[in-house]
Amino acid sequence: MRCLVIYAHLNPFSFNHAIKEEVVRLLDEMGHEVKVSDLYEMDFKAVLQPEDLNLQYSGSVAADVKVEQEKITWAERLILVYPIWWTGFPAILKGYIDRVFSYGFAYAIDEKGWVHPLKGKRALLISTHGQPEAIYHDRMYISLMDTQDVGVFGFCGMEVEHIFFPGIMNSSDELRQEYLDSLKDAIAKM
Amino acid sequence: MRCLVIYAHLNPFSFNHAIKEEVVRLLDEMGHEVKVSDLYEMDFKAVLQPEDLNLQYSGSVAADVKVEQEKITWAERLILVYPIWWTGFPAILKGYIDRVFSYGFAYAIDEKGWVHPLKGKRALLISTHGQPEAIYHDRMYISLMDTQDVGVFGFCGMEVEHIFFPGIMNSSDELRQEYLDSLKDAIAKM
Repeated sequence: MRCLVIYAHLNPFSFNHAIKEEVVRLLDEMGHEVKVSDLYEMDFKAVLQPEDLNLQYSGSVAADVKVEQEKITWAERLILVYPIWWTGFPAILKGYIDRVFSYGFAYAIDEKGWVHPLKGKRALLISTHGQPEAIYHDRMYISLMDTQDVGVFGFCGMEVEHIFFPGIMNSSDELRQEYLDSLKDAIAKM
Repeated sequence: MRCLVIYAHLNPFSFNHAIKEEVVRLLDEMGHEVKVSDLYEMDFKAVLQPEDLNLQYSGSVAADVKVEQEKITWAERLILVYPIWWTGFPAILKGYIDRVFSYGFAYAIDEKGWVHPLKGKRALLISTHGQPEAIYHDRMYISLMDTQDVGVFGFCGMEVEHIFFPGIMNSSDELRQEYLDSLKDAIAKM
């Protein structure tokens, strides 16, 4: 399958980086085609600007947005690797969504109602958070899935799976290895 | 009272802009002291960078972050005016939170547990969304409040109120005026 990995962490020594590396390794090993959008490395412009909207009104998009839209169009699977900061996406990833998931590309309205050009693609979200699981009571996990899975990818008609890796702050090497080992099954079932 | 208005919209002809103007007008009229952080006008750098973390480790912050932290320290009330995009904050506002609400300033841990330096301040969130209320079923409103009110300002020990103005896309002048008229009570009770 054609897989696009969208990765958003600022630190090449982070556990998120290790996850991204392992995801790419597994996808290669399983014979999938892989592209990677490393948002920090790309210095992706995160803030939706008036020019973006002006271009959208004229049926166009900025050059950097176009490149990303072409990758998403190409991909059958999106795999996002990112930390949860303040119960949300890091700003660079939120801005990627704000800019790349533009009207006409990710959703539209015609005389019959909503149109979902990305329907049929599937998204796998892999996100870490620093605090232990207990601090994110069950409702917070539901809220995270509502505002990330349902509110973004589900809104575009995509099916979504979300894997949470809690307790990363001060985590042991054993826990991190256990998390990395769990990726193989998740990727295989994707 | 000392009030900081944090405003995040790219369009000076938007309804969000009208809300911000009305909030500032009401605060002035009620005799409050007002500062405004207009994130688009400031071209606020939304993406948390390695330098930000390096500075944090050395007990410092970037100059632009310092300016905002001083405004927040000064303020007794924070009033945020922003649109909900993709069931989250606009990236520029998410990045403001990622960078300005830094460890040591907005939260910390000592030998007794969590420390909340911003406790006692109150936040009023005023957010629009394009779709009608019906598309955001009750659980989505709870999820938005979990991931914005509880997950950010509540985590910092602040009390939070959240006003939602739904159905902005194609809304009538009457509806918009009704929303603007409702601000007076909300600000008075703040």
